[in-house]
Amino acid sequence: MNNLISMRDLTKEEIMLFMETAAKIEKGELNPNMERKLAALMFYEPSTRTHFSFATAMKKLGGQTITMRGTQNSSVQKGESFADTLQTLAQYADIIVLRTGIEGSARYAAEVVDIPVVNAGDGANQHPTQALLDLYSIIKTQGTLENLNIGVAGDLRFGRTVHSLVYSLSEFNPKFKFISPSFLQMPSYIKDDLVSQNIEFEELQEIDQKIEELDVLYVTRVQRERFADPEEYEKAKSSYILRRSMLAGVKDNFRVMHPLPRVDEISTDVDDTPYAYYFQQAKNGVYTRQAIYAVLLGGLK
Amino acid sequence: MNNLISMRDLTKEEIMLFMETAAKIEKGELNPNMERKLAALMFYEPSTRTHFSFATAMKKLGGQTITMRGTQNSSVQKGESFADTLQTLAQYADIIVLRTGIEGSARYAAEVVDIPVVNAGDGANQHPTQALLDLYSIIKTQGTLENLNIGVAGDLRFGRTVHSLVYSLSEFNPKFKFISPSFLQMPSYIKDDLVSQNIEFEELQEIDQKIEELDVLYVTRVQRERFADPEEYEKAKSSYILRRSMLAGVKDNFRVMHPLPRVDEISTDVDDTPYAYYFQQAKNGVYTRQAIYAVLLGGLK
Amino acid sequence: MNNLISMRDLTKEEIMLFMETAAKIEKGELNPNMERKLAALMFYEPSTRTHFSFATAMKKLGGQTITMRGTQNSSVQKGESFADTLQTLAQYADIIVLRTGIEGSARYAAEVVDIPVVNAGDGANQHPTQALLDLYSIIKTQGTLENLNIGVAGDLRFGRTVHSLVYSLSEFNPKFKFISPSFLQMPSYIKDDLVSQNIEFEELQEIDQKIEELDVLYVTRVQRERFADPEEYEKAKSSYILRRSMLAGVKDNFRVMHPLPRVDEISTDVDDTPYAYYFQQAKNGVYTRQAIYAVLLGGLK
Repeated sequence: MNNLISMRDLTKEEIMLFMETAAKIEKGELNPNMERKLAALMFYEPSTRTHFSFATAMKKLGGQTITMRGTQNSSVQKGESFADTLQTLAQYADIIVLRTGIEGSARYAAEVVDIPVVNAGDGANQHPTQALLDLYSIIKTQGTLENLNIGVAGDLRFGRTVHSLVYSLSEFNPKFKFISPSFLQMPSYIKDDLVSQNIEFEELQEIDQKIEELDVLYVTRVQRERFADPEEYEKAKSSYILRRSMLAGVKDNFRVMHPLPRVDEISTDVDDTPYAYYFQQAKNGVYTRQAIYAVLLGGLK
Repeated sequence: MNNLISMRDLTKEEIMLFMETAAKIEKGELNPNMERKLAALMFYEPSTRTHFSFATAMKKLGGQTITMRGTQNSSVQKGESFADTLQTLAQYADIIVLRTGIEGSARYAAEVVDIPVVNAGDGANQHPTQALLDLYSIIKTQGTLENLNIGVAGDLRFGRTVHSLVYSLSEFNPKFKFISPSFLQMPSYIKDDLVSQNIEFEELQEIDQKIEELDVLYVTRVQRERFADPEEYEKAKSSYILRRSMLAGVKDNFRVMHPLPRVDEISTDVDDTPYAYYFQQAKNGVYTRQAIYAVLLGGLK
Repeated sequence: MNNLISMRDLTKEEIMLFMETAAKIEKGELNPNMERKLAALMFYEPSTRTHFSFATAMKKLGGQTITMRGTQNSSVQKGESFADTLQTLAQYADIIVLRTGIEGSARYAAEVVDIPVVNAGDGANQHPTQALLDLYSIIKTQGTLENLNIGVAGDLRFGRTVHSLVYSLSEFNPKFKFISPSFLQMPSYIKDDLVSQNIEFEELQEIDQKIEELDVLYVTRVQRERFADPEEYEKAKSSYILRRSMLAGVKDNFRVMHPLPRVDEISTDVDDTPYAYYFQQAKNGVYTRQAIYAVLLGGLK
């Protein structure tokens, strides 16, 4: 593998390689040495958390980073092309981590430079490292990715993260529950895909409706701005807020995940239950990104 | 010790542990290895100097840093709570250094996360690492913290730094001279404290009034904005500017300190006298913060 | 050598020391260990590329950096003098890399602090590290600096970079072709200098006029703002754009260089010819700056 651009490029075996590498790094069985390695973190869109996770992953392996933010880039202000910026950074760094608001920019970057490129989110398109860390969180808590009962709640229409997750899990024979307001349901093309693959799913409107059947509940935010009518939002909101009182009948292996940042879609009284997993999930992001660096920069031995 | 939140939490023994650790690090007798350690520097308020000092302290021990500034934090902009931001950073870093404008925020942070928290200034409240570096500068130049004659000049009413210093020294039997305009005198609650501990002090209005008695003169800025009347400021100002000509009769061990940045309260003609100590004081800040990292992260052996 | 302020300070032997050190570092024959070393990068003017190059150079040798940008410097906002900022940073770092808009500021800095200072561009004055990387790029591609036929195209009147390059090469018996619009020709004082040193040069107005005689063509940008009349610019522009079709008769050793960022003065169809050298030139900037760190910080053994 030379780049990580889209989950659609990865075979099941490649996904499992990332999972196993992350697990070995977490357990201390593998310690990829990134000393004297440099990652260029090009963040044209702000994302503190993703940026910190990639920076932490490299620095805790002994490597270093340089960060370019859109607004700071005086060369772009001077009229430099995206391709020239990439080619120049490729002279400095060993790997480029790229976040932009433009679909396809990561794949384009991978064509322009001859060092590895990692897509850290390109607009509404793909965010494969988030998908990998979500899968790693699932495998860590459930022991497997296969045959799981996965609830996905929130804005399923526009949510890049949940689309990637559903796509990525679909090779592992899941059962899905999609929980959202009716006008924020999973897009038809995704549901058609699932049907054609014989993957079971049902659509619900209350976050706790069948919670006792779930292995994992993946919560995302329903943004106020999606509602035409603020009153509609206030009415709908409480159907998509997970509260501690809803957790009475859940399975022992049940875990709540969230890509973070959270606003109010998971009540803080959930945080100290054994089911809350979102902060550990953030930590898993570091191990997953260390695995990505290791795979792409030859650190598997 | 798990955190460094306030000088009020420290025993005399703990203060001396920081002093001795800083001295060992400076002399090369102790070299705490911070490789693969990561400090998260959360600076909600700008402070280049404090930020650089903490970053330098970690990097020169082989460790690394990630920096979050208030305005850059897209997660906070998205509505994330302070507690969630802290808990997420705690997944990435080994220690959090926190600077905010809000009193009590550092203690709150220490309750939220299970990694060490260092208070790098929380509003008007506490700045314990400045106090420790000031004490280290005093012990280095005077050989002791005990029984010293300490002048403190400038804005004594609002100056967080001088309050911490006076509080911290009060266990070491000092004699104080407080030098300030009458309306910027040391607050009564601090003077009452000193009286109740039988600590000698007198209040003066001219910076060189009893300078020949002093071991240390700690100068801080009198801000123009404190004066209702600009003319009043111009008249008062020169009483609080230290000039070379005032140093004729000082003791050999006399040293001038300043937390920096200085504006004009110490004339630059003082800089090349043997009494000027403010730039070395900045360097002492690095050793002191290295001692803090060493104590809190288990680097004493 | 304690500082690198201006090419005018360097003897031919010192220039060659930088060249040889850069070559050894690039070939892996010298690996200066910068662990626990810290470079303070003070960039009062934005320059992503120069900043990244200096940061990369230090980090890939195992060292670290702290960066101060003009607008972030809260101490300067509080009224701190440039001299005090420098003296404080000198307590933290092992070397200062300084970029400002003010001529002479780097030399002033070197007088104020007792750690090495590197001039990373001071206004219209000097940019010696760019000159050194240009020389290194020439010696790498031509095998020598002596007796070369060098074309310099673009804004020769205001271009700091080309002035430094012409000055630096003048000790190596070059032949120059200066290619520019008539009102952006090389200043008389530089041409007088060349005449007094018996250095051959001619002034041309078309970029491909005598391209077949050249060993190196150094292209810089002609800025639209230099033209009083926009129509004049449109007419002139194409005379200073290098296109692939112009390269038919060039020598095998011919190379095109550019300080980057480029806008449109080199057509992208030149990029995949064997003559394009501007991206490698950027990489040479890293080796050259590593050589500078090595020379100034005692890393030659």
